Amino acid sequence: MGLRMGESTGMMLALRAAAMPGIPYGPNPRVGCTILDAEGQPVTAGHHRGAGTPHAEAHALERAGDRARGGTAVVTLEPCSHTGRTGPCVDALLAAGVRRVVVGLPDPNPVAAGGADRLRAAGVDVEVLGLDDPVFGAELELLNRGWLHGLVHQRPYVTWKVATTLDGRVAAADRTSRWITGEEARAETHLLRSRVDTMLVGTGTALTDDPALTVREPDGSLAPGQPLRVVMGRRSLPDTAQLLTDGAAETLHLTTRDPHEALTTLFERGRREVLLEGGPTLVAAFLAADVIDEVVAYVAPVLLGAGPNLLGDLGIGTLGDARRLRLESVTRVGEDVRLVLRPHRRLTHLPDGSMWIPPASFADRDPEPGRA
Amino acid sequence: MGLRMGESTGMMLALRAAAMPGIPYGPNPRVGCTILDAEGQPVTAGHHRGAGTPHAEAHALERAGDRARGGTAVVTLEPCSHTGRTGPCVDALLAAGVRRVVVGLPDPNPVAAGGADRLRAAGVDVEVLGLDDPVFGAELELLNRGWLHGLVHQRPYVTWKVATTLDGRVAAADRTSRWITGEEARAETHLLRSRVDTMLVGTGTALTDDPALTVREPDGSLAPGQPLRVVMGRRSLPDTAQLLTDGAAETLHLTTRDPHEALTTLFERGRREVLLEGGPTLVAAFLAADVIDEVVAYVAPVLLGAGPNLLGDLGIGTLGDARRLRLESVTRVGEDVRLVLRPHRRLTHLPDGSMWIPPASFADRDPEPGRA
Repeated sequence: MGLRMGESTGMMLALRAAAMPGIPYGPNPRVGCTILDAEGQPVTAGHHRGAGTPHAEAHALERAGDRARGGTAVVTLEPCSHTGRTGPCVDALLAAGVRRVVVGLPDPNPVAAGGADRLRAAGVDVEVLGLDDPVFGAELELLNRGWLHGLVHQRPYVTWKVATTLDGRVAAADRTSRWITGEEARAETHLLRSRVDTMLVGTGTALTDDPALTVREPDGSLAPGQPLRVVMGRRSLPDTAQLLTDGAAETLHLTTRDPHEALTTLFERGRREVLLEGGPTLVAAFLAADVIDEVVAYVAPVLLGAGPNLLGDLGIGTLGDARRLRLESVTRVGEDVRLVLRPHRRLTHLPDGSMWIPPASFADRDPEPGRA
Repeated sequence: MGLRMGESTGMMLALRAAAMPGIPYGPNPRVGCTILDAEGQPVTAGHHRGAGTPHAEAHALERAGDRARGGTAVVTLEPCSHTGRTGPCVDALLAAGVRRVVVGLPDPNPVAAGGADRLRAAGVDVEVLGLDDPVFGAELELLNRGWLHGLVHQRPYVTWKVATTLDGRVAAADRTSRWITGEEARAETHLLRSRVDTMLVGTGTALTDDPALTVREPDGSLAPGQPLRVVMGRRSLPDTAQLLTDGAAETLHLTTRDPHEALTTLFERGRREVLLEGGPTLVAAFLAADVIDEVVAYVAPVLLGAGPNLLGDLGIGTLGDARRLRLESVTRVGEDVRLVLRPHRRLTHLPDGSMWIPPASFADRDPEPGRA
């Protein structure tokens, strides 16, 4: 029991490979695999590059060749034993002659599960870490937070990101809002965007701010792998809107005001992680529908005394009915403060019956795996 | 040069003595004094108990008796060399036969200064730490923040304390506001109140909330030494207002809306530390008059979507004119977050020409000297 020499390193390399920037998100889990030779030395790492491409194990085994024989495969997710668009990974591992497989998370998806049992039946030594692993559990979960969430709730994981003054204003009386927060907080916004597959605003924000909603590198250039940009609401955008003209990323207009309807559509299109970036009306609708899973709020040490509030009317008349969240963390970010908040939710169960504690926040993981 | 055996302990005891709860604030500095015997063992500690009572040195020397001879006096503020309502402390120290005096802060008040020089002239070894002392500087300053501030600005030091939701509301639509923050933050409020000599609200808050504005111990009982309660504004309070009827502390009604006028009156009455506890209109007036020296804001992980904002109109129309503060600290307090903010101010000079950096916050000093 427990990890052997070189296997922790192998898991770190597998996590890094799985989280490489530019790997498309989508309905599939993000998976990384490291092959160790018989002495425990890492030979190669591979990752899954999206639907229809070889799985991480196949990718790593192919590059390892004969050096996999008698060695160990360290893989972030339980290898599949079913034939989807690619053959079962279990067969590939057996064919390559690995003697041991270290698994990060068991696959909670009943369709794909059973790989560990099949490997054991074939005489392979299998070690499974699981979500509770004190070293790797949190990273493994974070890597596939959207995917795990989708298995349970059939909708994407929604993070509301907002930048506000101490007095709750998201813009001044004349609607100017650039910039309330400092450079450090704004840089973090691009990091948050880089970790989702979808960015969502309302038509109100799109019309008022004409935002680009792109992920930019610290040098200002466009990052590889831009998330889908989604505008939600019934009003139409002018042909001159940046979102429609800049060609930086795909833009989708969902002509609905119903958060459930929008999230169902996005889920069906394979989206698993949504970053909601306002405005007050849209956010109020999402809060009322109880589909905000995390709030990342940057509070600037600024007072305005007037201007739009960060949140539209929720229909709350008295303090006893206030929407109370759980404070997950508070961190100074440059001259601003970042709060991460979550709804008070019960533990939930994955389809395989295992308990799932609400996941860690991306905002609190810095640097993330796969980014130096 | 530097402190000798036992003198750091002596300074800690002197600070604790000076900050004992129940010592009246007022126009005089808070001073503590420890007497060490010739071997550096603490013999006794004394403090100044208010205008007209013996100074800290006299208090400590009286209790030390003969054991002060050949010993050391450790005193938080330079001993006075002038005769006010009591005789000069320098004479008392010389009469007691102390061989060495360790001084926390030099007295920046030209009327009282010169004590260290007179002691040296009489052959006493004198060590002065000053505001820059890396160990005791911050505590020494905090102990007399209001007094130092008054010497420079001829008005009390003003701390605005506010409890708000993340969306900047200080009450729900129906004006209910008990409680936005949790137990820990509310307990801190009583600690903040215990460290000032004056609490200030507007007539609006007094009429809406009917607050008690008392300092309570954790068990709910009234603490010794209640600050003055001040209500500011032109409206009159009903005879049934708690502030007028509960007898817990003195209440003063200042029938002005001008913050400068109110603060001048309070300063002339010997007040040096004011805790401003809202509401939005009064706070906006104080901000506009630029007489808020510190903001202690408790932000609760709560969303309301409606209700009064923590701040009234400041006449700010565009983001470039926003009131930007300096974020001094951010700390989790139970389920809430405490931000301490300060205006961006230049260094200032005390009357004796020494530089004075804006002082540390009470909110960040826990436990304070004198409280276990």
